[in-house]
This record gives sequence, C-alpha cells and structure tokens, in this order.
Amino acid sequence: MKKVRIALAGFGTVGTGLAKIIRENEEWIKKRTGAVLIIEKVLVRDISKPRPFVPHPTTTFTTNPAELLEGNPDILVELIGGTSLAYELIKKALEKGISVVTANKALLATRGKELLSLAEEKGVGLYFEASVGGGIPIVETLKESLAGNRITSITGILNGTANYILTQMSQKEWDFSTALAEAQKRGYAEADPTLDIEGIDAAHKLAILIFLAHGVVYPFEKLRVEGITDLSLKDISFAQELGYVFKLIAQVKEKSGYLQAGVFPALLPKNHILAKVDGPYNAILLNGNAVGPIMLYGQGAGDLPTGSAVLADIISLVKNNKQVNNTGFIESPFEPAKILEPLSVVSEHYFRFSVLDKPGVLAALAGVLGEYNISIAQAIQKASPSERAVPVVFLTHRARLKDVKKAIKEIDKFDFIVNPTVHYPILP
Amino acid sequence: MKKVRIALAGFGTVGTGLAKIIRENEEWIKKRTGAVLIIEKVLVRDISKPRPFVPHPTTTFTTNPAELLEGNPDILVELIGGTSLAYELIKKALEKGISVVTANKALLATRGKELLSLAEEKGVGLYFEASVGGGIPIVETLKESLAGNRITSITGILNGTANYILTQMSQKEWDFSTALAEAQKRGYAEADPTLDIEGIDAAHKLAILIFLAHGVVYPFEKLRVEGITDLSLKDISFAQELGYVFKLIAQVKEKSGYLQAGVFPALLPKNHILAKVDGPYNAILLNGNAVGPIMLYGQGAGDLPTGSAVLADIISLVKNNKQVNNTGFIESPFEPAKILEPLSVVSEHYFRFSVLDKPGVLAALAGVLGEYNISIAQAIQKASPSERAVPVVFLTHRARLKDVKKAIKEIDKFDFIVNPTVHYPILP
Repeated sequence: MKKVRIALAGFGTVGTGLAKIIRENEEWIKKRTGAVLIIEKVLVRDISKPRPFVPHPTTTFTTNPAELLEGNPDILVELIGGTSLAYELIKKALEKGISVVTANKALLATRGKELLSLAEEKGVGLYFEASVGGGIPIVETLKESLAGNRITSITGILNGTANYILTQMSQKEWDFSTALAEAQKRGYAEADPTLDIEGIDAAHKLAILIFLAHGVVYPFEKLRVEGITDLSLKDISFAQELGYVFKLIAQVKEKSGYLQAGVFPALLPKNHILAKVDGPYNAILLNGNAVGPIMLYGQGAGDLPTGSAVLADIISLVKNNKQVNNTGFIESPFEPAKILEPLSVVSEHYFRFSVLDKPGVLAALAGVLGEYNISIAQAIQKASPSERAVPVVFLTHRARLKDVKKAIKEIDKFDFIVNPTVHYPILP
Repeated sequence: MKKVRIALAGFGTVGTGLAKIIRENEEWIKKRTGAVLIIEKVLVRDISKPRPFVPHPTTTFTTNPAELLEGNPDILVELIGGTSLAYELIKKALEKGISVVTANKALLATRGKELLSLAEEKGVGLYFEASVGGGIPIVETLKESLAGNRITSITGILNGTANYILTQMSQKEWDFSTALAEAQKRGYAEADPTLDIEGIDAAHKLAILIFLAHGVVYPFEKLRVEGITDLSLKDISFAQELGYVFKLIAQVKEKSGYLQAGVFPALLPKNHILAKVDGPYNAILLNGNAVGPIMLYGQGAGDLPTGSAVLADIISLVKNNKQVNNTGFIESPFEPAKILEPLSVVSEHYFRFSVLDKPGVLAALAGVLGEYNISIAQAIQKASPSERAVPVVFLTHRARLKDVKKAIKEIDKFDFIVNPTVHYPILP
C-alpha cells in the first residue's frame, strides 16, 4: 500500500488531534485513499516535554526547523501559527515541490498571494480548509461546490471565542470580563485574547473567504475591524427587550463588482438563522446567484474538528495529486479587490444615549438624527433612579453608517449627554 | 479555449435552470475551469413546444433518445427522472466512456450499485450532487471534506414539500389537505405528491447518504418509511403546547458497525437546530467522530439551486477529468449494510389516546405502558365538551419502538378507546 509521508510543524492541540484521528481512522482512510498516512517527523518547541501520544512508531521529533523537510516528505502540515517561521517553512516546502496543508489564517490573510503564487508556479498544493471555520467545509464548498455561482454575500460567525463570550453575556448576564475569564478557563480563549475579541482573527478568515469567493485580494489593512471589548451588558439586555441578539459578524457583500467588507458586532433579529448559533460554534451564511442562501454550521475550533479539516486537505492532496486545486481558479486572479467604502454601508441602527432627564432632550436627539436622514423606528426611555444619566434607546430605519457617525459626533456635543453615545448596526 | 460538450436529457425546471446559470455565469465558469460549457443537444418530450430560452445558438433539440449521445458528448446530464429511460441513457453513456451527471435519486437508490460499478469499470464519472438536498453540497462534503471521519449519525430534513406542508400546518393551523393544495399551487408539490408526502423521496435520498457515509448498500426496500399523510392538526398543536414541532426526519445511526435507518415524522424540541428549518428548506445534521456535529442548510429544490448542484458536478468533472471520484472510496465497497432492526430504536415518545371520560382510564393506560417498560414523563388531559372522545396525551421517557407498538396494540383493545391511538417518536 502507498505510503504518504507527512512532516508536521507544531504538536499542540490541532497537531495532536490530527495525529489521533489518523491513528483512530487508519483503516477507514485506507478505504478512502488507498494509502496509509505516516507522520514521520514533528517539529516541536520543547524536545524534553513528555509525549504520552506519539503519532507513529517511526515518528521522530526535532526542534530544528531546518531538519523538518530533510527527508523530502510528501506533505508539510503547518500548525505552528504566526507569520515568520511558518512562512519560512511553507516557502521552503513549496520551493522543494512539497505540498503544504496549513491552518494559518493570519499568514494567508497577509501573505497568501505570495505563497499561492509560488505554489502555482511550482505546481504543488497549498491547502487551507482548517484556516476558516474549524471543521466546517467552507473552503472546499467555495472552491468546488459553489464554483459556478457568483457569491453575492457572505455573513459569518467566524470566531468561536467571541461567540462564546457573547452567548454567555446574553444567557447568563455575565459582563464581558467574567465571560472572557470563563472562556479562558474552558480553553476557548488564549491567555492573550486580543486576536479573538478585537475581531482580528475573524477578519483574517474573512480575507480568505473573500479571496475564495471573488478571486480578488482584499488588503487586510483596509478591512473594517471592530471587536466586542466595549460591548456592555446594558446593550445586550436592551437588544433582547427589542427582540435582538448581538453577534460578532464578518461580512462581505458584492455590489456591481465592488466589495463592502468588515468585521463588527451587530444586532440580529432573534429569528435570524445566525441568531441561533451559540457558544463556540461557527456558521457561514452564503448567497449565490444560483444556489440562493446556504448555511454551514459546526465547531469553529478544537483539536478534532480542526484536525478533521486538516485531514480533509491531506486526503484531497493524496487523491488528486496530479491536479491540485489551491484556489478554485484556473489561474489565480490576484488582482486587488474593488473596494466600496465601508462607511457607505446602509442598515438599521441601534443607539443608546446617556442623557440628563430634562425637557427637550428627545426632540434634540431626533432633530439631529433627522438632519442626517436617520428616522426613528422604536424608542425606549427608562427611568434610572440610582443614576444621574438616563438611557434612551432608539432603533432606526435604514441609514448610512457615515451619516450615523456624523450624527453621533454632533449629538455628543450636547451638554445633556452624560456619556458618549453607544451605537451598533443591525445586521446589514 | 477548451470546449466541454454537454448532452442534456430533460429540459424541465432544473434543465432550464442549469442552462440559464451556464449562460449567466459563462465568464465566471471560464475562470473556474478554463473551459466553455456548451449544451449541444437536448432530449425533450415535445419538440413542437415553444422554447423561449435556448441554451446556446448551436443547441439542437430531439425527441429520440438514441440520438442524444450520437455526437459523443463529453458529459451526459440526466434530468428526466424515473428509472427506465434514465437508466438506459446513463448505462449507454457510461459504456461509451461518457461521464454522467444526474439528479435522479430514485434511480441511484435502487440501481446505484450497478451503475456505479459500471462507471468504475469504465473509469468515467457518475456524479450526483443534485440528487440530495438541492443546492446543498452534501454529496461533496461526504465524499471529500468528511472523508476522514467515521460518520456516527445523519439526521436530515430532506424533502422540501413535506417540510413546507408541516410548516404551514404548524404556523397557519391549516389541515394537511389545505397545506398540500397550497404547496401544489406554489409549485412545491407535484400533481401526484405521493413520493414526497409518503416519505419515499426522502428515503431515496437517505439511501444515497448511507452509501456515501458508510460505503455500504442499504437495500431500499428494507428502510423504515413513514409519511406525513395521517398527521393531524390536533397532534401538531399538542406538540406545540409541549414545546415541540413536527418534522419529517430521515435518519441513520451507526452502532458498532450496524445501521439503524428510516424516514418518519418525529417531534423535535423547539430549540433543536433542525426545528428552525422551515418552509421548503432542507438541512442535514451530521456527526463525525472527528468533526463533531456539522449542519448544512439550503434550498432543497428549485430550478437554480438544483441547477447549481448539477453545475458543481460538471465543473468538478471538467477540472478533474483524469481522476474522477464517484463514491469517495478507492474501490467502491458495495457490500450490503449490516442492519439493526428499525423497531429496536430507542427514544422518547408522544401518544394521543382518544378515550371515554370515565374513572380508571388513566390507570389502565399507565398500567399497560408500565408492563412494556414505558414510563410517562408528562401528561395532558383536556375536556372536550363537544365530542364524545376525550384526548389524553402522554410524553414518555425513553422506550423501545417495538415495545411501544405492542403496548398500543394492547391498549387499543380497551372498550374505552374511541379511536385508534396516535403515536409519534420524539427525535431519537
């Protein structure tokens, strides 16, 4: 039986998960591929660490990156993350004609063009199913199943950590820091959670989806990226009262060839299909000009789900080794995306004003909003006996984000405004 | 540019949809495949019918099946349905070394083994993404993305007609025949709706999913198949009162290498992810031993969604013409499934008894259930002043279906039973 020799960079959660699946499902994988997968060499940081689980009796461990590809493996699996050593390893593998499987969204979002061009030039595989949505087959779906569709929109919950935090805040009325601490305790959030809670991780994934769906490069630094660190329990409960839940949304919409893209917290109506995606789950809702709406849902992270996606890529490379399909395009179209100004996005909006309870306040607020063509759909005003400031919440009809930002700037100059105005869009 | 010559059998809803997508997305498909797709010949029933839309300036129409493959096309797309002419056409194409794309679930469920063996022998493609779930990429997902997983369960809403009817009954309190008439009016149900409402269509699709997930043939005639024709509004509203909705479920569970499979109406807790799949939508919830739970959701029928799936297969064949992947297995394992007796399935249950309102009735019912190890979790008894019979509804704890059937048989002998007992499982 054919042997597929794998070099594995990184033996953390996902690397171990992958090795376990390969062991557990070995006979099944033979039926699927006609091959046996052997993890021959593993690059680790600490060679002295005890390894209760070893991928294969012949596996050797090394701390020296230069050694990893020495034996000319069939496939390099890169799971160390980061954009420096991972970049060097992948580049070296591709140059040697070795196919690569990676879960590295940060690297692909920022240097994907360069690496995919190199893979194309060398005629080898560079697969990355695990980079978006954990075990959810979204990369394959965009490259293959929906290849004949023009994708008009993608709306995703792409970060399980942020979604877990928002779910706990909504359901248990925890504040942000309590929910974050719990996420860290459960292993859903890292010690430094910045990438997750600031929306950066979701934005990396969005950049990859944009490339797969539209065949263009959207410069990562031009994406609108807003995280959830400022979200307060107050807004979550007002939203609930109005029939909405908060989600951290990654979205791209295509309008006459131009793309409007960003990551931002938004309110979703409770009956929206993405509103039910709770806890560490991810989901991606796509619209294609033929298929209509499609949603894919599953675990966005974790050892086995992400390992499953890495394994899917390995199997695909083993089966189609003569005809790799890295991008879903015949010649990777690396043109820059035509970008629609993120602030031109139109949607309904949520406002919470902190005001002094005195006559004329509502009229003044409504007046400024009206000047910017923002009309009010619903309002809540609550007495707050213990506090000096009274919250006033508005839901508006559709308005441009740019106008909303301008209106807020003007409103916050009023002397009856106690705290800066809070604003979130309703899912565009 | 490379030309891909397509012979199309059938120019109804899906065939026209396919031709429209190919036209609309022609430039895009070139970027994806490096080829132009040309529908050269179309087999129709009535040549004199006006054709306001013609796939390509060079397309010719014929009513003679023998003519369809005369020009040795690259791909036959079979969309006429049925199991006789469709079978002959596909067989002939495969024998001539022509790859086939089909949406024909009835044919695949009953004669798939024979046709897939022939395709394997000839080394050509036989692709069928459109046979299950319309535009949802479930076939590709099972063949490729989840190929490294052992699938432990599949639970699907696979028939959009039945789901539309159940949704209308639940939300609008229509009875079955009103909802069916509306489905027919909207084009969701055919003039003869038997295949849809009796669960047969869903069972065809389930047989295909079982083959793809487990690599075994589950004889179609051995599937448990129960439809929704007897479902009454009474049961739907009792279920709602208890926090459940009715769905027509297609399910297979793997237990130690044995498969338990069937199509049946069942109650789903309202917060179950499949409970929110409404109207003509389909969804498939899978569990893999690596990926965990995954759900795919989309339109299960219709010209463009199903056309999108057919196009996905065509694109896949064009791109991977040297390495077709019909089944997801290296050598199609056509062994028969090891079948777990459908009646051995264990779940919670819903009962509605029609009884005379007299002393001792509840005790007698509970007594018989107890004899069969069925214990009651919730009960509703309602006075019904206008009718002689009073409904008594029980939800039970987990019990074997076989025991449930026996208990009902015994209970229905009581003289206080006015109408035969109604029973449905809660989603196992």
